Amino acid sequence: MNLYPLKNKILHGNSLLSKNPKSFIKNGWPNYFQKAKGIYVYDLKNKKYLDMVFAVGTNLLGYSNINIDKKILQAVKLGTMSTLNCLEEVILSKEILKLNKWAGMVKYARSGGEANCIAIRIARCYSKKTNIAVCGYHGWHDWYLSANISESKNELKNIFLPGVKVKGIPKQLKGTTYVFKYNDYENLKKIVEKKNIGIIKMEVMRNQYPKDNFLQKVRKLCDKNNIVLIFDECTSGFRDIYGGIHKKFKIKPDIAMFSKAIGNGYPISIVVGKKKIMKSAENSFISSTYWSERLGYVAALATLKEMKRIKSWNRTSFMGKFIKKKWKEISKKHSIDIVINDGIDSIPSFDFKYNKEFFKKFLIKEMLKKNILASNYIFVSTQHNINNTKKYFKVFDLVMKKINEMSFSKKNKKIYSNQMVRFN
Amino acid sequence: MNLYPLKNKILHGNSLLSKNPKSFIKNGWPNYFQKAKGIYVYDLKNKKYLDMVFAVGTNLLGYSNINIDKKILQAVKLGTMSTLNCLEEVILSKEILKLNKWAGMVKYARSGGEANCIAIRIARCYSKKTNIAVCGYHGWHDWYLSANISESKNELKNIFLPGVKVKGIPKQLKGTTYVFKYNDYENLKKIVEKKNIGIIKMEVMRNQYPKDNFLQKVRKLCDKNNIVLIFDECTSGFRDIYGGIHKKFKIKPDIAMFSKAIGNGYPISIVVGKKKIMKSAENSFISSTYWSERLGYVAALATLKEMKRIKSWNRTSFMGKFIKKKWKEISKKHSIDIVINDGIDSIPSFDFKYNKEFFKKFLIKEMLKKNILASNYIFVSTQHNINNTKKYFKVFDLVMKKINEMSFSKKNKKIYSNQMVRFN
Repeated sequence: MNLYPLKNKILHGNSLLSKNPKSFIKNGWPNYFQKAKGIYVYDLKNKKYLDMVFAVGTNLLGYSNINIDKKILQAVKLGTMSTLNCLEEVILSKEILKLNKWAGMVKYARSGGEANCIAIRIARCYSKKTNIAVCGYHGWHDWYLSANISESKNELKNIFLPGVKVKGIPKQLKGTTYVFKYNDYENLKKIVEKKNIGIIKMEVMRNQYPKDNFLQKVRKLCDKNNIVLIFDECTSGFRDIYGGIHKKFKIKPDIAMFSKAIGNGYPISIVVGKKKIMKSAENSFISSTYWSERLGYVAALATLKEMKRIKSWNRTSFMGKFIKKKWKEISKKHSIDIVINDGIDSIPSFDFKYNKEFFKKFLIKEMLKKNILASNYIFVSTQHNINNTKKYFKVFDLVMKKINEMSFSKKNKKIYSNQMVRFN
Repeated sequence: MNLYPLKNKILHGNSLLSKNPKSFIKNGWPNYFQKAKGIYVYDLKNKKYLDMVFAVGTNLLGYSNINIDKKILQAVKLGTMSTLNCLEEVILSKEILKLNKWAGMVKYARSGGEANCIAIRIARCYSKKTNIAVCGYHGWHDWYLSANISESKNELKNIFLPGVKVKGIPKQLKGTTYVFKYNDYENLKKIVEKKNIGIIKMEVMRNQYPKDNFLQKVRKLCDKNNIVLIFDECTSGFRDIYGGIHKKFKIKPDIAMFSKAIGNGYPISIVVGKKKIMKSAENSFISSTYWSERLGYVAALATLKEMKRIKSWNRTSFMGKFIKKKWKEISKKHSIDIVINDGIDSIPSFDFKYNKEFFKKFLIKEMLKKNILASNYIFVSTQHNINNTKKYFKVFDLVMKKINEMSFSKKNKKIYSNQMVRFN
């Protein structure tokens, strides 16, 4: 089958920007998989790849985890849908409320984008104010991207989505969402003072640690101004700790969302919030047919159980720290300047200090030659360990060596000369 | 386990309004299922019910359809997620474009509400106008419910969602969505003339047939005014015909969405549109992690294949017509006035002419006593046939007889006296 013309028939080429081959390299990235098991992915020709990217974090317990899939297979055999509701929705609620004692009610969806919309709807019901101050990545919906309709043209640019376009978003939403910078409390305070903010939505952390009691200050600001504080934990939840990463900092939100890690590859997203806030949306219509299917709940319950059993958060954050340490050692050995982000441990990431994009793509290509899927970030799973990632570090060492050689080679000097090259 | 307090911990009690027990009767409806097979549902005590409601149409091929589930089980074993995309997304696109020759590109999501949002985003990219004229039911998102922010307070009231509240929707969206009445062309024309409409979104049909060339006129109006015409086929698609029900009327939209029937219980939704319109959204960020999972695509492919194999649309529309005929016969026999809707054949529905709500609830309760889940509508599946629905019609006959007796009984006259009772 000729795939290329068909790929051209899917808007944007595929369903998730981060999985678009172009997000890695222009040519040569394997587009499709037929099998995924543990930390390995098999392409259509059955070529086996070691996966050191790992699917934006949906499979924290590894691909095709047998303990999750056993429960999935059982549920498929029993039936996943009916006129009646599935009990797993109720049991999951009990579990989610047990580990979010500050909260009193839950609501479910099947994607992070939807969970984000639900949280905003509920918060607006309670706050009675429309305006939102936002920090981090929160999906594709109008409420969020409308931040880009602003005088400075591209408010989101410096946050997560460089050059994201505002096409197709009602101009009427201009001035409803304002972006604030992480760890810049004065910036946020100014927005709250001037923009009639009713809601603050943020990622607790991503690529950097909160500094100077940033989260405490945000919480206080919300309390003082009767602002609903929403922590979007779709990416950060259940990775470095059992529950939201906000637990690490002992700061409680008013609403939180979870999604990626909690389904281990099966669609589910969760909104959890304080009872009085959730209840304020009782008369707001929020309902969708496929939210009532069974597998999402079954997957989340099985994933939570398995996480607890093996204390997954210890494994993934240990391994994330180990990866950062190895990156540091190897890059130092070859005198390559890289900046390792001080973010979520189990999502280690780095940037080359010079010629960022060029060297990143070089790394991707070299890794690919050795049948490794890799970029400058890793969503660590519990299946990654010191032993089975040895090959990755061996190739990483080789690539760093090559970069060192390249940058000192006379032949290549010209290529880099106008790209601000500098090596120690 | 005491379920009641837990149910109170889920906002709105469950995930889909149409499956909320309160949508049927106040007490006694079985909330949860443990098993569903064919046309039967088993509650937590393993009590078996004949299902004559049938899950708002997600399981057109019956619960736990073996031919679909075989493919699902295979996919679970191979792995449902990875850093790479799944090929089934591409194969499904080929299939969807083959049966929508007017279209050139597709985009996927996992719920009907999401598909509706995507279609609106794309249409706004192309039209460059924000305003929408809308008819029918299209989910829970802001763009749609904002129609309720109007001078007449509740624009959606007469369409589908009586008394739906506008809580939590930005006031800024007032005047962006206008509701028009089905089969009322003059009404729509007036809205288009006055409200700078760029998009018309509608259900092709639901409870009534198009009259007086309504759909042709809408298409012409769109062509004349450069309006993007969107057919929401999330409910109507693949029921009475293979593909969108618009095929029956030979009217082509610019964008169409499919969802419920196409996954046979596994979450999937599809947006399909003309190439130039879809391409206009190339620079609009529309992306979500769980849209890249495999089971939705696998389910849709298997469902389409099975539909074609057994010509499901012939079975379901035959059975729908048969049900309407039986309703008519039995109600006439007992001199009960009911109005059978002239809508989609495979979703037969009726209303009692007098004391609508009271008799509907009486019917639900009586059916439940005989272990039948039933209301005044049925989403017919291919598993329903003349033989296995005999019990349903026997009980229907009994209920109609009881209603006749009730309405002539002196004892009950008082109860109905201020409820506009009238029987032939």
